[in-house]
Amino acid sequence: MPEVCRNIECLKELISKFDGVKVGLPLLLREGPGFLREVAENAGERLRIADFKLADIGDVMASSLEAIEVLGYDAVIAHAFTGKRGGLEVLISKARELDVKVILVTSMSHEGSREFYDKHFREFLELAKELEIWGVIVPATRPQLISEARSVLGNNIRILSPGVGVQGAGFGSALCNGADYEIIGRSVLRSNKPIETAEEILNKVKEVVSACRTSSA
Amino acid sequence: MPEVCRNIECLKELISKFDGVKVGLPLLLREGPGFLREVAENAGERLRIADFKLADIGDVMASSLEAIEVLGYDAVIAHAFTGKRGGLEVLISKARELDVKVILVTSMSHEGSREFYDKHFREFLELAKELEIWGVIVPATRPQLISEARSVLGNNIRILSPGVGVQGAGFGSALCNGADYEIIGRSVLRSNKPIETAEEILNKVKEVVSACRTSSA
Repeated sequence: MPEVCRNIECLKELISKFDGVKVGLPLLLREGPGFLREVAENAGERLRIADFKLADIGDVMASSLEAIEVLGYDAVIAHAFTGKRGGLEVLISKARELDVKVILVTSMSHEGSREFYDKHFREFLELAKELEIWGVIVPATRPQLISEARSVLGNNIRILSPGVGVQGAGFGSALCNGADYEIIGRSVLRSNKPIETAEEILNKVKEVVSACRTSSA
Repeated sequence: MPEVCRNIECLKELISKFDGVKVGLPLLLREGPGFLREVAENAGERLRIADFKLADIGDVMASSLEAIEVLGYDAVIAHAFTGKRGGLEVLISKARELDVKVILVTSMSHEGSREFYDKHFREFLELAKELEIWGVIVPATRPQLISEARSVLGNNIRILSPGVGVQGAGFGSALCNGADYEIIGRSVLRSNKPIETAEEILNKVKEVVSACRTSSA
């Protein structure tokens, strides 16, 4: 979690600048489910993503999903490589029942993603379509994959893109390549002035996107 | 979690009958890190496995690992699918530093495992050897994979096998096929008399293993 912006007042202000908030396992382990609930409560109607990279048998993922929904989150991230039968199909069925959005990881931002994950990228996109998933994760560090995802998925499935900032891709670059959202984490949370940094980054994103849209128009 | 055996006294007695204890995400989400710490404290010197199926970029997995170690767990389960570079290599480096065992999922017990996971089974075993991992997960529902894992890995890497009981494989079957441990979950935790059920299952395992060792001797 942020060194500076640890208290809920600061986080509330920070979240208000973005389209949504995403929490993960390190935060859950350190601060507990009560804190996660508080974060969700302070996000208003924004997208509240529980990013535990679900990757288990269906029953276990469904059980986690029930607990996640109770904490106030309206979207979960799960791994495509878990497969459909007895896995993602069980999760998605439970997600429909609870009205929670499922976001599928189809590629990851680190180098190791090329070793196994990316070999199935096209299959994962087809799986996302077949399962009528809400959104997919495609990293900003793989710009050509974002373009490919957009062309395969059309406009009904959102593309969320991590990997901008600390991980190396430029702010706004994923949006220019066709993503719907960029996921910004450490660049803001590790800043000494997270609110100011967030504003600077958001201005940078607007500038970059405006330039790429002008040049492609 | 167990319907009946929810309190720490009952769990302590239950854990004392086994070689170790494994906790997962649904429990963490519902009961919080304090309860997980209490479970670990009551497991004595037994194996204490944090099973969050880690599958993230290296820095995030390492951050989770630090928090897991603080809670008193001495082993973590991670997905082979994540890949080595910038992923598992970062986790394993942190695990060596903290003296935490890493257990790698190389196949899963549900049907969906055949869709992507099992296509890389042999590569995952080689990866486990290369990374000098402490143990691997191979499901009891895939007996031929357990034999293959034992033959590829030799005796230096432990094989832990879920999928016995509720998921369909017979108690003791994985041990007979070459696994070092069977992971027993719902069969005990969903029982109305978990302690008695645990004893019955352990007797059954002994009986089955004794029979298969006699017949193969």
